[in-house]
Amino acid sequence: MKLKYSVFLGNVGHCFDRYCPEYSKPFTLGELFDRAATIEKLDAVDLVMDLNMLEKREEIKTHLARTGLKVGSLAVDTFANPLYKKGSLSSTEPDVRDRALKDAKTVIDFAVELGCKIVTLWPGQDGYDYIFAADYIVERQLFQDGVEELCRYNPDVIITLEYKIKEPRTHSYISTVGSTLLMIEKIGLPNCGIALDYGHAALGYETAAEAVAMCKMYGDRLKHIHINDNYRLWDDDMIVGTVHTLEYLEFFYWLKRTGFNGYLVIDQFPYREDGRDAVAESAEWLDVLQDAANRIDDAEAEQILAKRDGVAASKFMRKILFGGNK
Amino acid sequence: MKLKYSVFLGNVGHCFDRYCPEYSKPFTLGELFDRAATIEKLDAVDLVMDLNMLEKREEIKTHLARTGLKVGSLAVDTFANPLYKKGSLSSTEPDVRDRALKDAKTVIDFAVELGCKIVTLWPGQDGYDYIFAADYIVERQLFQDGVEELCRYNPDVIITLEYKIKEPRTHSYISTVGSTLLMIEKIGLPNCGIALDYGHAALGYETAAEAVAMCKMYGDRLKHIHINDNYRLWDDDMIVGTVHTLEYLEFFYWLKRTGFNGYLVIDQFPYREDGRDAVAESAEWLDVLQDAANRIDDAEAEQILAKRDGVAASKFMRKILFGGNK
Amino acid sequence: MKLKYSVFLGNVGHCFDRYCPEYSKPFTLGELFDRAATIEKLDAVDLVMDLNMLEKREEIKTHLARTGLKVGSLAVDTFANPLYKKGSLSSTEPDVRDRALKDAKTVIDFAVELGCKIVTLWPGQDGYDYIFAADYIVERQLFQDGVEELCRYNPDVIITLEYKIKEPRTHSYISTVGSTLLMIEKIGLPNCGIALDYGHAALGYETAAEAVAMCKMYGDRLKHIHINDNYRLWDDDMIVGTVHTLEYLEFFYWLKRTGFNGYLVIDQFPYREDGRDAVAESAEWLDVLQDAANRIDDAEAEQILAKRDGVAASKFMRKILFGGNK
Amino acid sequence: MKLKYSVFLGNVGHCFDRYCPEYSKPFTLGELFDRAATIEKLDAVDLVMDLNMLEKREEIKTHLARTGLKVGSLAVDTFANPLYKKGSLSSTEPDVRDRALKDAKTVIDFAVELGCKIVTLWPGQDGYDYIFAADYIVERQLFQDGVEELCRYNPDVIITLEYKIKEPRTHSYISTVGSTLLMIEKIGLPNCGIALDYGHAALGYETAAEAVAMCKMYGDRLKHIHINDNYRLWDDDMIVGTVHTLEYLEFFYWLKRTGFNGYLVIDQFPYREDGRDAVAESAEWLDVLQDAANRIDDAEAEQILAKRDGVAASKFMRKILFGGNK
Repeated sequence: MKLKYSVFLGNVGHCFDRYCPEYSKPFTLGELFDRAATIEKLDAVDLVMDLNMLEKREEIKTHLARTGLKVGSLAVDTFANPLYKKGSLSSTEPDVRDRALKDAKTVIDFAVELGCKIVTLWPGQDGYDYIFAADYIVERQLFQDGVEELCRYNPDVIITLEYKIKEPRTHSYISTVGSTLLMIEKIGLPNCGIALDYGHAALGYETAAEAVAMCKMYGDRLKHIHINDNYRLWDDDMIVGTVHTLEYLEFFYWLKRTGFNGYLVIDQFPYREDGRDAVAESAEWLDVLQDAANRIDDAEAEQILAKRDGVAASKFMRKILFGGNK
Repeated sequence: MKLKYSVFLGNVGHCFDRYCPEYSKPFTLGELFDRAATIEKLDAVDLVMDLNMLEKREEIKTHLARTGLKVGSLAVDTFANPLYKKGSLSSTEPDVRDRALKDAKTVIDFAVELGCKIVTLWPGQDGYDYIFAADYIVERQLFQDGVEELCRYNPDVIITLEYKIKEPRTHSYISTVGSTLLMIEKIGLPNCGIALDYGHAALGYETAAEAVAMCKMYGDRLKHIHINDNYRLWDDDMIVGTVHTLEYLEFFYWLKRTGFNGYLVIDQFPYREDGRDAVAESAEWLDVLQDAANRIDDAEAEQILAKRDGVAASKFMRKILFGGNK
Repeated sequence: MKLKYSVFLGNVGHCFDRYCPEYSKPFTLGELFDRAATIEKLDAVDLVMDLNMLEKREEIKTHLARTGLKVGSLAVDTFANPLYKKGSLSSTEPDVRDRALKDAKTVIDFAVELGCKIVTLWPGQDGYDYIFAADYIVERQLFQDGVEELCRYNPDVIITLEYKIKEPRTHSYISTVGSTLLMIEKIGLPNCGIALDYGHAALGYETAAEAVAMCKMYGDRLKHIHINDNYRLWDDDMIVGTVHTLEYLEFFYWLKRTGFNGYLVIDQFPYREDGRDAVAESAEWLDVLQDAANRIDDAEAEQILAKRDGVAASKFMRKILFGGNK
Repeated sequence: MKLKYSVFLGNVGHCFDRYCPEYSKPFTLGELFDRAATIEKLDAVDLVMDLNMLEKREEIKTHLARTGLKVGSLAVDTFANPLYKKGSLSSTEPDVRDRALKDAKTVIDFAVELGCKIVTLWPGQDGYDYIFAADYIVERQLFQDGVEELCRYNPDVIITLEYKIKEPRTHSYISTVGSTLLMIEKIGLPNCGIALDYGHAALGYETAAEAVAMCKMYGDRLKHIHINDNYRLWDDDMIVGTVHTLEYLEFFYWLKRTGFNGYLVIDQFPYREDGRDAVAESAEWLDVLQDAANRIDDAEAEQILAKRDGVAASKFMRKILFGGNK
């Protein structure tokens, strides 16, 4: 197994947070493509199709052509546009929800135009901050119905749902692998899948490998992967591999085991680092981590897993990481 | 709405933890019933049917008869018996899993004998501690199949699954409201439900009221409630109401809204307190919290929820709690 | 006890976060003052003296005069200016650190000009994100020496340190009440104090009342309070009182008990709410929470605390909140 | 640097938790020593001197002599004896506090008899569970005074304080590295130090290497180390190295950098594993992790740390762990 890498184009650029409006100078769209293109290990870019990007569809095609970068997925912007600040597909305001559906369909159409099969929906604003401030049933149903409508809009495009337990809302509707798979089960369409963000899984106290297994078990729904690292209590969006080691190895082992063959999309916020270099670093880590996972002997791993024993697992991990036969 | 209260019988007794084997002296079964019976607000007891209790079935009936206490639910012991230390229904050891099924069926039969409709399954040992120590798909499927077998064993008894994100294992299979509802959906039987533990919901960063709403939405699956309090980062199992206030009010409001009419089972670990008095305290809190929730005007609440606005929600909560019209 | 309220001026305005650059339209400085002035319960404003504000010192004085608002404290900007993205007083880059000292001294001078006795230092960027990326001893010492230099610069102005365990860095140097009091102890000057942010305490798993007690015990160092609410796992900066209830009551009780008489500064991020209304809500909550804490009978509280018993504490809290004699 | 290993003797035996009173059969004292002695990499044992052990002082000496194991430290039992369930040195009950002082002095005397220089105090029960249930100032002062009395009792024995943010109490007084160093600073005696538990640091969102640095900076107070692993949100007490990798490397690098030369004491709860094998595994991990940390070139590390850059740190960590020159 050697998975291909993509990156959210903006990651090679600059960042802001709720205190500092600009950690470094912004780049033009062309410069972002140029910077991404210097990272040889990248095969593709993922694009957040916000209002600005929707207007630059022709320019995007030009940059893709000249750099040779493919598109891993297009993401619908339901989080940066303040119109959706209280929700997009879950909104009880018909105008807002209709606009979200319209935006998403425009992105689906553009995906077809680019030959891209995956559209990502990260409903960051679909949730709530305060209690007594939402009808949880009505809003969840609206969201589910909206996703179903998008799946039916073009059965050839896979709509992937990216769950996250919180942020920017204090509570998200699409929060865990379980609740997301349940919604997909209820929608019951083949082109509805999951975009698993490694950091979101860690934030929700999920073992990423178990989340991969659940996606396999309940309909083979894993279609796209976002990758980054964090300290488990917040979506720190750090360079891959700078915090976790063994859990990545188990994650890649289960991706191989379950036959995942989509993209690994680098998705990080290098506030204080050079964005391009931080992405290049993640690609290097992905190489060495995948290599290490690939060196795992499948038959041996099967035996170890079947033992359900902490000591056996520990010895195995030590061997994978540091070699030796003890 | 005025829900009835039960208590895990052992709660009026003594506790131990991983450091201290005995915080205070143990009580006999008869003494525990006597202590529970002194708390007027209790309607029933919930019983963990461990090996010892299974042998005392006749004695239990006598104590129930003499105290007039009902049975809220019987819980299968899949967590205190060291046989299940690496899992019960999810165990890949056929002997262990068969025994777990047999134990559960014995408990189901005894429930029928007692006229109790609910059997609780808290699969505390069904999970894993270390990575690379479980085949997540095989074990989850075994668990799901086991639950299905129990549901089919007696369609008149409701099997309620109590989820918890961790402890005693570092990771549980039945972890969140979403993944549990998903499993119930796949089992697809009417007598499979959820036993929602308020503290477990809080521990998993769930809003308890939203969990109630999800149970309603996906098959009306909420059948039993465990109640206690904690600081949100661990299952502290404290006296109800000593940490959270407003979230309980929203929780009770949604219980009313969704028509829940089962038991509120006090389930706490009063390590350093007098167990009986700590349970009596929780019952007092449940009264005042339910009363406060009942004072909520339904029409007004509908309007507030529909606003999806933090300021409106804040004013409403302030009014519920402290009165006034501002 | 009835403490006076201030607010961070920007709180009545608009917000952004790392996804959405503008949740609503920005306001001019004059409009912000106008909006704050409509909230009768406010006595003062706290001002973040960023580069823009430093240039508007005369305008600020005009707005203060016309609105009658006092100044609770001036905060040095060591977090919004990207110059300090890798640290201000802890920076190993002499130019950056010197500039931070210079900025702070300018703010101290302006405080004197305004008759304000408190300057707040929230060293949000002084910390680290990645391991192997800091000499923890060198940087902490530089920070400590910098604070000492500022305290010596004008002994009539109190420098208050606002600790926070993380964000915007994944790890802050000034992280907990203990490590901050330790640093203050080593500096050993009377005009070095703590600005306690209620939400930061909660985020760091501190009991705010215990933090108040520690500040009293170790030199009477509590000089300023920031107030907001959160779900304990992130600095959600919500409207005061919308999450916690009893812990606020204990907090206010200990403020009274230890004789605190500084400002309660509302410090929140109302991303999706009207900023002015969200601040007004917090002021209303502060009134009712302080009133409830003031109704606590001191002698009775002493007795309860001395019992060190969960049941007694529970009864007492129930009584404070819901009345009754049980 | 090659640090020596000790283990809490009970770790090679059996465990219980708050649900299961006995995960496997218990061992006699002699059997525990036998089992520890089979682990060649162990140099010593640490002993919790509970009532039972205090009576077996002669037997302990015999076992030490016959196995050749040294004593890393003696720990005072202030957590398993239910007498201390509401606190030991912080207790406001004079009888309880006096007894705790007496127990500790007995342990200090026995340490001298064994030629052991370190006595560990883990005040697990010194804290509180409920709010409004403690006078935080009085109890903290009592604890501090008690520690001072023990330090003065025998200036040749080092009293090490082991902090932990919670458990078994929901809140501990000796909670973080900062608050513990502050207390030591106030006590002001040379034989008062810190026993740093790696897992406790992780649980409190401390970077263990930074905690080491702070101990160095504020009086060179690090005297003893407990080691185990966890998922950062609870003191899971797992086999060393099964969760964290890079943070251990930074930790060992800083131990070398600050000249620590005490024991690494394996301190874990192998509920479901064979205790002896789980300890042996930790010793193997400690070898490979220390070896990897020792391969770090000091001059290069200095340069990297001075850069304060995530990308440089990432490259460096990748090189340490996987080699290569990129």
